[in-house]
Amino acid sequence: MQSYDVVVVGAGPGGEVAAGKLAEAGLSVAIVEGDKVGGECSFYACIPSKALLRPGELLEEVRHVPGAAEAATGSLDVPAVLGHRDELIGHLDDAGQVPWLTDRGVTLVRGWGKLVGERQVAVGDEVLEARKAVILAGGTRAALPDIDGIDDVNPWTNREATTAQEIPASLVIVGAGVVGSEMAQAYVSLGARVTLLAGRGVLPREEDFAGQQVAERLAEQGVDIRTGSRPTAVRRDDSGVTVTLGDGSTVTADQILIATGRTPQAVDLGLEVVGVKSEGFVEVDAHMRVPGQDWLYVIGDLNGRALFTHMAKYQAAIASGEILGKPMVAEHMADGPGAPRVIFTSPQVAAVGHTTTSAEEAGLRVRVVDVGTEANAGGSYSGGGVGTARFLVDDQRNVLVGVTITGTAVAEFLQAATIAIVGEVPVTRLRHAIPSFPTRSELWLYFFNELGI
Amino acid sequence: MQSYDVVVVGAGPGGEVAAGKLAEAGLSVAIVEGDKVGGECSFYACIPSKALLRPGELLEEVRHVPGAAEAATGSLDVPAVLGHRDELIGHLDDAGQVPWLTDRGVTLVRGWGKLVGERQVAVGDEVLEARKAVILAGGTRAALPDIDGIDDVNPWTNREATTAQEIPASLVIVGAGVVGSEMAQAYVSLGARVTLLAGRGVLPREEDFAGQQVAERLAEQGVDIRTGSRPTAVRRDDSGVTVTLGDGSTVTADQILIATGRTPQAVDLGLEVVGVKSEGFVEVDAHMRVPGQDWLYVIGDLNGRALFTHMAKYQAAIASGEILGKPMVAEHMADGPGAPRVIFTSPQVAAVGHTTTSAEEAGLRVRVVDVGTEANAGGSYSGGGVGTARFLVDDQRNVLVGVTITGTAVAEFLQAATIAIVGEVPVTRLRHAIPSFPTRSELWLYFFNELGI
Repeated sequence: MQSYDVVVVGAGPGGEVAAGKLAEAGLSVAIVEGDKVGGECSFYACIPSKALLRPGELLEEVRHVPGAAEAATGSLDVPAVLGHRDELIGHLDDAGQVPWLTDRGVTLVRGWGKLVGERQVAVGDEVLEARKAVILAGGTRAALPDIDGIDDVNPWTNREATTAQEIPASLVIVGAGVVGSEMAQAYVSLGARVTLLAGRGVLPREEDFAGQQVAERLAEQGVDIRTGSRPTAVRRDDSGVTVTLGDGSTVTADQILIATGRTPQAVDLGLEVVGVKSEGFVEVDAHMRVPGQDWLYVIGDLNGRALFTHMAKYQAAIASGEILGKPMVAEHMADGPGAPRVIFTSPQVAAVGHTTTSAEEAGLRVRVVDVGTEANAGGSYSGGGVGTARFLVDDQRNVLVGVTITGTAVAEFLQAATIAIVGEVPVTRLRHAIPSFPTRSELWLYFFNELGI
Repeated sequence: MQSYDVVVVGAGPGGEVAAGKLAEAGLSVAIVEGDKVGGECSFYACIPSKALLRPGELLEEVRHVPGAAEAATGSLDVPAVLGHRDELIGHLDDAGQVPWLTDRGVTLVRGWGKLVGERQVAVGDEVLEARKAVILAGGTRAALPDIDGIDDVNPWTNREATTAQEIPASLVIVGAGVVGSEMAQAYVSLGARVTLLAGRGVLPREEDFAGQQVAERLAEQGVDIRTGSRPTAVRRDDSGVTVTLGDGSTVTADQILIATGRTPQAVDLGLEVVGVKSEGFVEVDAHMRVPGQDWLYVIGDLNGRALFTHMAKYQAAIASGEILGKPMVAEHMADGPGAPRVIFTSPQVAAVGHTTTSAEEAGLRVRVVDVGTEANAGGSYSGGGVGTARFLVDDQRNVLVGVTITGTAVAEFLQAATIAIVGEVPVTRLRHAIPSFPTRSELWLYFFNELGI
């Protein structure tokens, strides 16, 4: 039996960061991975999706800027897009990711890890003992919805959609959350006819205007968006995949992508062996520890708090800090449903903290201030399209509790809002943080003006 | 004699904002302008320079993104760039700017305003009386350096460079501050042969790495940068303009642009009539009031605090707030030399607060942390080039006191740093402001890592 200070199960972004930080601090660390080091994010999610979206987004921007537009007369080069995507995902080989771990002295154990007792992880016939702690970072996989026939049509999930070597002539997407919306945009810009089955609408968890603006742009690009009715059956035959909706209508396409959410990979982790509920997300405390098990941490998607790579890495810092005696707890609205998030559609959607709906549900009395993302001097020359910035000010505490910004290339606008919220900077103090002219960040100035400060 | 609550002299961005805010609050306001409503910024500086730079910057970005690069095989369309520039500056007609004032009930008086007594401004034969206050917002104009022959060669200043209808085959630029560096980039990308006489180097007031990176990019684009020696004489003849440098070398070009700084338009404002020093920048207190003259405010470039449009607008809010009995003072390092600033070169330079040099001069003990702007997942697909982010942490107070970020399209990164500095958010709290993956804002995460928090 090999013995380590810490055994990490799962080498996605959360597991990697936790293992790296612990090893850098001098602990002996083993990390167990049955698939690819780097995880879903590096190979089948964040990275390849951005590689598919970025070229189209940038060309759209160029076409709005006279002088540059005339130089960009060609269309997206699809093989080049896919080829660059393949490079960025290392052609699905994790060899490029391993050195980050091994350079830090982390022992990589290939195979599926499973708890077989307190502080004990089995990988095949081998058992790894953890003197200090076990960190589970098993992540999630695509959830398949309960639709008649779904198991017989071999549907795409995010994995196939992000790594496809050919663009199907037509694609039907079930679900219009982040994955469904991003892939609808990517595939329509890459030349597919796309039908988006949006049920409750596009991006239903974000501010209404965000989903509406993305839906409008998708429709302009030719995406057929169907709302209000859910798929009830799906069949595949020689003509492709046919989805029947609750209202009796049908959609036929060459391929189907299921994008209806994620399910934790908690089964077969051996949680029940140590008395922890073994299905669904695993509950943890503010230190990412499983209540009652002072040696067991769960980070990343698996704890269900905030299914984002950046939050997995944040939780990795919290768990490893706790193990190293440098405790830090998730706080200041940085965690959970208010976590910062960016959806890389056109327009992009960048949000942190509450939406109007979630603030209401939380019983907060907020002042809602909307300004145009492009309605300033910075917007006049930069090449952006439609966009809105919504600020939610807590009336009692005089601080921001939520910001949503839509528009072209607004992903990098988010950190300012996140710092304002996490720092709980009073709006009267924020007013002295002057955005430079002529940048689109002057949306902050318009926010101050609307507030009358 | 017409009487108003407030008379504003100068309808640049500062004067406009002050007049607008006062009129919106119900005061009667006259604004006096002898040139264009909108000022230097709208017609001869911020706006046309961005219009000249943006197309080239965007094309450069596109050429770094496989899939989009193949669509952009043409070159910059110079007439289209100039045409769009002309649109954005209203073809040098301020008719589009006037309604912003008149809609708010501000009286526009055309002509040059001059103090002729306490609370009295003459415009030609007319005298306007100000019951409450006079705000001077006269701005600056290009300073001509003391070079033998300069008065005889009819040199370009920012005005001619930003509004040129033809691109000269060759251009020599004296001075490599913001105007010189931006115009060097614009003109080389528009097809001119450019020589940049940089004296102390490119962007000497910013971090060394910023100037070096911009200089390297300019050199790559073909700009001939001469440092270490200053112009001593200039002559124009049939072959163009010849500049002689202190080391005896010469440069000949079709046109010369002087970009060696700004001088306040304080002469002929009548300041001496009310006993105020009438040359150079006019000193003001934290309320933008001239000491000893409780009715006289000076905002924008004219007070010399921070020569930026956004700071003029900020000072306009301070002065008008004071007049309206809602006092707000410039504070929290938002004002003065630490004001936020963006230089729209390639790479862009975005900075707020101290540089390493200014922090040292101020006697601060700072920890300097450098990370790569593009050295993260966001940089892998977005199309950026070289870039560095420098964070200066005050060791005693544990807060940021300066940030400089260089890179592609980093202008919008600045507001996060500005909020962190103005909000005096401790770095241990900042650590919970998690940048989204995969954005380039993860440079903040790398900063936290380097700090070991």
